[in-house]
Amino acid sequence: MTKFSWRIKNYSKISKARTGTITTPHGIIDTPAFIFCATKGALKSFTTTAAKENNSQIILSNTYHLMLQPGSELIANHGGLHKFINWDGPMLTDSGGFQIFSLGHGSVADEIKGSSNIKRNKSVLSISEEGSLFKSYIDGSFKLLSPEKSIEIQRNLGADLILVFDECTPFHVDKNYTSTSMKRSHRWAIRSNNRFKSKITYKSGFGSAGEQKLYGIVQGGIYDDLREESIDFNLNKIDTFGIAIGGSLGSSKNEMYKVVNFTASKLGNKHPIHLLGIGDPRDIWSLVKSGIDTFDCVSPTRLARHGSALVRGKIGKINIKNNKYINRMSPIDKSCSCSTCSKYTLAYIHHLFKAGELLGLQLVTSHNVFFMNRLMTVIRQAIQNDNVDAAEKEWIS
Amino acid sequence: MTKFSWRIKNYSKISKARTGTITTPHGIIDTPAFIFCATKGALKSFTTTAAKENNSQIILSNTYHLMLQPGSELIANHGGLHKFINWDGPMLTDSGGFQIFSLGHGSVADEIKGSSNIKRNKSVLSISEEGSLFKSYIDGSFKLLSPEKSIEIQRNLGADLILVFDECTPFHVDKNYTSTSMKRSHRWAIRSNNRFKSKITYKSGFGSAGEQKLYGIVQGGIYDDLREESIDFNLNKIDTFGIAIGGSLGSSKNEMYKVVNFTASKLGNKHPIHLLGIGDPRDIWSLVKSGIDTFDCVSPTRLARHGSALVRGKIGKINIKNNKYINRMSPIDKSCSCSTCSKYTLAYIHHLFKAGELLGLQLVTSHNVFFMNRLMTVIRQAIQNDNVDAAEKEWIS
Repeated sequence: MTKFSWRIKNYSKISKARTGTITTPHGIIDTPAFIFCATKGALKSFTTTAAKENNSQIILSNTYHLMLQPGSELIANHGGLHKFINWDGPMLTDSGGFQIFSLGHGSVADEIKGSSNIKRNKSVLSISEEGSLFKSYIDGSFKLLSPEKSIEIQRNLGADLILVFDECTPFHVDKNYTSTSMKRSHRWAIRSNNRFKSKITYKSGFGSAGEQKLYGIVQGGIYDDLREESIDFNLNKIDTFGIAIGGSLGSSKNEMYKVVNFTASKLGNKHPIHLLGIGDPRDIWSLVKSGIDTFDCVSPTRLARHGSALVRGKIGKINIKNNKYINRMSPIDKSCSCSTCSKYTLAYIHHLFKAGELLGLQLVTSHNVFFMNRLMTVIRQAIQNDNVDAAEKEWIS
Repeated sequence: MTKFSWRIKNYSKISKARTGTITTPHGIIDTPAFIFCATKGALKSFTTTAAKENNSQIILSNTYHLMLQPGSELIANHGGLHKFINWDGPMLTDSGGFQIFSLGHGSVADEIKGSSNIKRNKSVLSISEEGSLFKSYIDGSFKLLSPEKSIEIQRNLGADLILVFDECTPFHVDKNYTSTSMKRSHRWAIRSNNRFKSKITYKSGFGSAGEQKLYGIVQGGIYDDLREESIDFNLNKIDTFGIAIGGSLGSSKNEMYKVVNFTASKLGNKHPIHLLGIGDPRDIWSLVKSGIDTFDCVSPTRLARHGSALVRGKIGKINIKNNKYINRMSPIDKSCSCSTCSKYTLAYIHHLFKAGELLGLQLVTSHNVFFMNRLMTVIRQAIQNDNVDAAEKEWIS
């Protein structure tokens, strides 16, 4: 019995959009799908039960954070991350590569906004052939994250879908660095895959490759020839279940669309394609047309904690803390059937943020999670009907 | 049709313990009952839906906090506090009197612990015959809270059970001040009752006294003769639905038990008796035997936010943040059927507190709320079986 499979159900005739299913031992993901971030093993203010009630299909956790706290062996001793955090649906873990980027170079948000004032910190001490040496943000101790170590941790965590270890290059490095880093990430991908295939018995009992599937990552920054080289590597030099698009996506939204479209269009349909770190609904509308199957981003839950509720229309989101909502008797979105919109007015949620009550950010988180899952359902339906442009127009207008 | 009623179901033959029912337009409260504090209109990190799922019968909100943010007229315009916060069960509001105490003099916790180092702040500028003048903690503006104003606010809020306006005297004032304050609180109680009975139409539409019932408050500090005078006032000089025991309860647990026992034993059975601000499970076991019908306290939810989970036995509570739980595969309490204990290990909740994840305090809040309601169920059963001492011993051991 194949516990994992990837099947495309519908192709658009107009764009590269497609619907499909990723089957995992913990259930089926209908794609295009959005993956919510339980970075440290929790969706911040949200239970996994509530995530499921709000139609979430899959969540992800982070190798980097969990290796530092509480440690992957502890989680393995508890039977893996699914049991530890009480989530029995599909799960993905990243490899820690993104953290080398965000802790060493800056953040994706800075990148896409084209900020010239990127904050640096010195958590990443060095990146060498062996791996990345960094300082723990918890106790300041030195830690080496290597391809082998990343895979061992992800084996201990036991997520269904796991990623090769990579360096996510930032925008502001030159083509030469991007190329050198890409080639090293390819060598790291081969080491990751070798470790993944090895018959080591892991503490979690998740030692058999049948229980997990690996994703490769396409590098190459904004350079078409490097992207082509990395696409060729991922399609022909290594054999992974899925492929993620990583690395720098440029300094503007247009550049990002260009890079993703160029890359995804050449990846074909043998693998589910994941786009790392993108979660803006407008970007999702645009990029499903390039053939992206899954997205992840902290933004829906992070925005909620800062009082921003996602809404349809040009506006995209509203700031609950705005004084104009002080006496608003309507919900965040009248057309939304989430538990927050069914039960609470904007005036009440506005009050909760003003009074500093934690319930406020929980209610907005709940709405934003429901919103993203509703968005993905509408998108899947639109692809099936092959009217994505019309559906997008209706959603945005 | 009587929307409100108070009925005693079982009397203990051994102690003054009793079970009963308080009927309100929003449902029936089985007593003895615990009232959870939604101070600013939210149970901090907990939805009212979850409160109901965890068997909560009644919650309370605070006149003082809600008059400052968002204001009682705004809540009245939304059809009252029940609709505003989405709670359709019984509700109580305090009168603001406790805040005059805690903001002007110190806190009950300081009192009962016998702390000699009571923090003062100057929020309460003066207490006069008219009422209490204080400075808003939100914008520094001057606010007068009087008996009439307190009742008007509580009418706007529309809770089922409301309190007369009083001054809750602290422990460290002398008998002379306690007596002067008590007599003024009695005059305030008469003014509160007059305002309560007046036929003013309130914005909330809750202008008819039939929709709400008033509680008087017994004052007198630790002085038996003053308590007797206040008991006589509450039983014979004013006619309220319920009676609360307020004022200073002394500087030690023994003194508190003595004061409450003395007072409750003389209050008889014509009124439901509420004890203000006490929520320690051991105190509750002790004080139901004095005839207390309802309790309220912030402690179950406040303890949870600081990582303390309530448990049976001598220990009473455990500190989730203690390193000994780092790898504990069992739940907070194996005998507990709450959603937290059914789904999560101590190791996971410990991790959440260490990682600073909000979900941690939500899970412990959920457990503590369930725990308190389970405690009250066990107590009601024990009173019915007239074996409270044995049941208490079993609970504590």
